[in-house]
Amino acid sequence: MTKIEGVKFDERGLVPIVTQDARTGEVLMLAWANEEALARTLETREGTYFSRSRNELWIKGATSGNTQKVVSVALDCDGDAVLYRVEQSGPACHTGERSCFHTPLLEGADSLDGVLARVYETITERLRTLPENSYVARLHAGGIDRVLKKVAEEAGEVLLEAKNGDREALATEAADLVFHLLFALAEVGVTPADVASVLQAREGKSGLKGPKDVG
Amino acid sequence: MTKIEGVKFDERGLVPIVTQDARTGEVLMLAWANEEALARTLETREGTYFSRSRNELWIKGATSGNTQKVVSVALDCDGDAVLYRVEQSGPACHTGERSCFHTPLLEGADSLDGVLARVYETITERLRTLPENSYVARLHAGGIDRVLKKVAEEAGEVLLEAKNGDREALATEAADLVFHLLFALAEVGVTPADVASVLQAREGKSGLKGPKDVG
Repeated sequence: MTKIEGVKFDERGLVPIVTQDARTGEVLMLAWANEEALARTLETREGTYFSRSRNELWIKGATSGNTQKVVSVALDCDGDAVLYRVEQSGPACHTGERSCFHTPLLEGADSLDGVLARVYETITERLRTLPENSYVARLHAGGIDRVLKKVAEEAGEVLLEAKNGDREALATEAADLVFHLLFALAEVGVTPADVASVLQAREGKSGLKGPKDVG
Repeated sequence: MTKIEGVKFDERGLVPIVTQDARTGEVLMLAWANEEALARTLETREGTYFSRSRNELWIKGATSGNTQKVVSVALDCDGDAVLYRVEQSGPACHTGERSCFHTPLLEGADSLDGVLARVYETITERLRTLPENSYVARLHAGGIDRVLKKVAEEAGEVLLEAKNGDREALATEAADLVFHLLFALAEVGVTPADVASVLQAREGKSGLKGPKDVG
């Protein structure tokens, strides 16, 4: 096995790995890798670590089934920490929580991007399982026109509250619009990542583009 | 100083800290804290670490000015890693890059995560500086009605492409709608974080709520 360019393993031969959900941005876990584990991750795109407690190679999900498809890997500026961005199936944490970082020491608000990804996942899960008392299931039963009417209605409410200059009401209506937009996307099989790609491609070209027009 | 509940410091008295941008979701750095640094972070909400090279308390940005306002702190399931979510001013990395994790070992696509925050920041920056050839500046000059008409127009196009079942066109129109929604929010002084709070409050209550209704 060749030495992985630039990675500094510590005196135990380990490097800390930060693992992030590539879809939601959530930080899922901090674990460790030796050179073999990191090389295997780069080669197979399966999240692979070194278990310090069991003192052996640890392919995440090998026993639990909650595997990680590795989307990208990055090294930090001084070469002594690595970031895996992964598509996590099931919870990352052995406790059943999505992320291992679920014990708050200090509370605060989340970002919009992370929330949207979670909301989208919940919508698609509701569309799969159709729980009886679910708003998503009820609207879905009415067909896609019901969902799209809500998109139009909530867009109208955004217009009104923006004209009213009522910031609190506008935030609420914007949330309603975004929720139903995600719902419509889910109905047609478009993901937030598809939308992100469009926005990102525009960012790339000119810093920022308005639709069909220059920044 | 009281022992911080549940945190396991290693034999050097350190715990690894993953630092994440609370607005964009980007993982910024991996650093270390001793008990004093962690306690200071919890108390002051200033990102504080322990510098292993200088062997001293390290208040991030104390010399560079690139400080971190700590939004939340979480401990992982086995108590030996901590996550700071921060509002980073300026670049986190001493190289001038936003994140220390800027050396790709394996490349991959990005997610929605971070794009919305960046687009919103660019819009507000354009509204401040009004560059001559900017789409944002041009639309803004026409008054908020111009922006809101675009919200309505793009919502209409989302409806049409969803009915057409054209996934690519729908992703494009959804991006246009999201862009103009963020634009309208910026005009009224509502932030993506305000919208996220509304959605998060609903998540918190019942896993997921539709607007004014149960998940």
